[in-house]
Amino acid sequence: PHDSSITGIKKPFTEVIKANIGDAHAMGQRPITFLRQVVALCTYPNLLDSPSFPEDAKERARRILQGCGGNSLGSYTASQGINCIREDVASYIERRDGGVPADPDNIYLTTGASDGISAILKILVSGGGKSRTGVMIPIPQYPLYSAAISELDAIQVNYYLDEENCWALNVNELRRALNEAKAYCNPKVLCIINPGNPTGQVQNRKCIEDVIHFAWEEKLFLLADEVYQDNVYSEGCQFHSFKKILYEMGPEYYNNVELASFHSTSKGYMGECGYRGGYMEVINLHPEIKGQLVKLLSVRLCPPVSGQAAMDIVVNPPVPGEESYAQFIKEKESVLNNLAKKAKLTEDMFNKIPGIHCNPLQGAMYAFPRIFIPSKAIEEAKAHKMAPDMFYCMKLLEETGICVVPGSGFGQREGTYHFRMTILPPVEKLKILLEKVKDFHIKFLEKYA
Amino acid sequence: PHDSSITGIKKPFTEVIKANIGDAHAMGQRPITFLRQVVALCTYPNLLDSPSFPEDAKERARRILQGCGGNSLGSYTASQGINCIREDVASYIERRDGGVPADPDNIYLTTGASDGISAILKILVSGGGKSRTGVMIPIPQYPLYSAAISELDAIQVNYYLDEENCWALNVNELRRALNEAKAYCNPKVLCIINPGNPTGQVQNRKCIEDVIHFAWEEKLFLLADEVYQDNVYSEGCQFHSFKKILYEMGPEYYNNVELASFHSTSKGYMGECGYRGGYMEVINLHPEIKGQLVKLLSVRLCPPVSGQAAMDIVVNPPVPGEESYAQFIKEKESVLNNLAKKAKLTEDMFNKIPGIHCNPLQGAMYAFPRIFIPSKAIEEAKAHKMAPDMFYCMKLLEETGICVVPGSGFGQREGTYHFRMTILPPVEKLKILLEKVKDFHIKFLEKYA
Repeated sequence: PHDSSITGIKKPFTEVIKANIGDAHAMGQRPITFLRQVVALCTYPNLLDSPSFPEDAKERARRILQGCGGNSLGSYTASQGINCIREDVASYIERRDGGVPADPDNIYLTTGASDGISAILKILVSGGGKSRTGVMIPIPQYPLYSAAISELDAIQVNYYLDEENCWALNVNELRRALNEAKAYCNPKVLCIINPGNPTGQVQNRKCIEDVIHFAWEEKLFLLADEVYQDNVYSEGCQFHSFKKILYEMGPEYYNNVELASFHSTSKGYMGECGYRGGYMEVINLHPEIKGQLVKLLSVRLCPPVSGQAAMDIVVNPPVPGEESYAQFIKEKESVLNNLAKKAKLTEDMFNKIPGIHCNPLQGAMYAFPRIFIPSKAIEEAKAHKMAPDMFYCMKLLEETGICVVPGSGFGQREGTYHFRMTILPPVEKLKILLEKVKDFHIKFLEKYA
Repeated sequence: PHDSSITGIKKPFTEVIKANIGDAHAMGQRPITFLRQVVALCTYPNLLDSPSFPEDAKERARRILQGCGGNSLGSYTASQGINCIREDVASYIERRDGGVPADPDNIYLTTGASDGISAILKILVSGGGKSRTGVMIPIPQYPLYSAAISELDAIQVNYYLDEENCWALNVNELRRALNEAKAYCNPKVLCIINPGNPTGQVQNRKCIEDVIHFAWEEKLFLLADEVYQDNVYSEGCQFHSFKKILYEMGPEYYNNVELASFHSTSKGYMGECGYRGGYMEVINLHPEIKGQLVKLLSVRLCPPVSGQAAMDIVVNPPVPGEESYAQFIKEKESVLNNLAKKAKLTEDMFNKIPGIHCNPLQGAMYAFPRIFIPSKAIEEAKAHKMAPDMFYCMKLLEETGICVVPGSGFGQREGTYHFRMTILPPVEKLKILLEKVKDFHIKFLEKYA
């Protein structure tokens, strides 16, 4: 039995299972060997003479070090990031987007994606004028957005994802939200998370076209959070980048719509959260805004250089014919296949529990099931001054040791309740976890019937 | 001859010498082997089985990895940083300060020192009230401060360092600045940089006592930027931490004065700028402010974990009896002795040039010589809409390839002109550089006589 560190009271479980954060390695996922080899070689270049490191990893490391002042990861880089890594990012984007051109000058390496998102929001919001800037964000949303908006004293403009339609983004809902917001603020930015966090939907091409057309029509700056671009599981679903679709819609769109898109080392199959690596690509950024961005980024000097190196390997992994390719692909597919399996398992298990409904986990790494909370439980939660789903999650933690995040942390339609759970625990553990949630939920329904 | 990338015009030099940024590795300084070994071991733990790594480095790496989720640098850490590293920082501070207690709970690992400085300024400034918050900063100052203050829409309150007295901080000047500022803002924060950047002075104990007494009297929050604590060169000079002196002044002071002090992996003898490692220690932080700080830091998730690991080695290097001690001490002393030699060389050379006066470089890694600019040159600068020292530095760059930063970027007394130059180039290169500055300056004086 687990001793609570605060109260010393014996708990009815032996282990806390942290299914609250998208932190793959903390849940036992192994790093991609090639990525770590390259970063280790860059860190300690004596290893370049070691026969135990493959030649392709050494080549990557030499190239990165050549981009560093004094050939050292310990030098500052340009605020925008190392040149050759930005070139690799641009090549990656071109390959990903079927040849749509990408300019390294439009790439900014960042300290994780959140740093880029915060920076660009800051610039767009400070652009000012009399009325406060509105930033449209999905509900439910990853709370980085609401936190950044509140920190910047901007106005959060909610648009609701359609839970009945697998969390789809509906342009009519965007229009409703925008029109209402115009009465009290100046909406300038539209944030999209695709694949969705916490909701796991993958947007189809038609939906993205509609959103881009809407942004063009309403002159909104698009922020496309695409950090889960490698995490797509459902059959028939495919990741389309906003950049690619923008270009395919023709010059009227790609010469006018302002877009920033974000990627990171933290998610995908590599799960390197701790390196704080990321990039953003900007399209049609006004030169004045660009100047402000460079100035803002230069205050914090440069993104961590080992994170820049890690980002390089995410966009420039081994290719067929290289020594490390076979192992790399095996590791990558093992992680992604596992995630796909766990996505399906989680959806299926949740939907077998009475009073829980879970949309398909098309992508990302979370389930966001809707939970029925009986009115007696809602009353008890209110008596404890807690949101009902917070009350539910606290009970779940106390009784099972499972840690998930209440839906109220992400936003949800009034009167609906959810929680977010990662699908990162190993399969066997995930099964146990889901069984425990089931038992808990059934007992919870009985208790508050 | 060097081709200017912009104009293609041949320049009268073969190489640009970047003496503008405190970026040691970029100027050829070698990393400390032990630090890189530990970070490489953490990055690629297979190396823990390699006989080519020393046992003490492996021990450090194992301990750090045990502090990481899933034993991986790729996991997020607590926003405040890895526990065992904060413990090592606290032990380091206790050793440094002769036993004055340090609490790991008061240590926050940061993304370089600048991240900590920006974060704490943000919290202190947003504390609000009606009138805008005043932040007292030295002039000249490292421009992170002015940039952060302007970004936060706070009021910059200048106090001038006494150039005639080796850039000493005089409490009468602090009082003058504070009293004048009270007329138009609410001064709440006093920033100190010791050893000074760009000015290189090292504050004596008496001066620090006076500053602490002043902060106590005026209820100012002290920010002590102590990132150059290992960079003290002049005989008779010694680094005293504000924390230590605060405690020695007795409970009336150490129970009341609010203090945050900052350190970093970027300077000292390790010069690991690229890792973006740092910490801050806070004393007497109000619980409400602490809560805000934790919330602010949690938005950006955690500092880069390899930077945290690098910080650990800065505070927990090899000790006598350990396998790596001899090499570590040799490398450390070589860097610091070299810097001391170059500090003296630079001071001596500058003071032999007519029209240049340079205070002793007691610490840090910069010279900030005062330069005489003839009135004809000042007129020509004005005609070009340039600050006179900017005009001087541009000419220096064009004619010699030497890149330094004009004093106007740091602030200086009206009518005085300076530039900041790092002493980081290797000795032989530094000599050539100083000879070139001398020739340039003499010609400049002749030309505009």
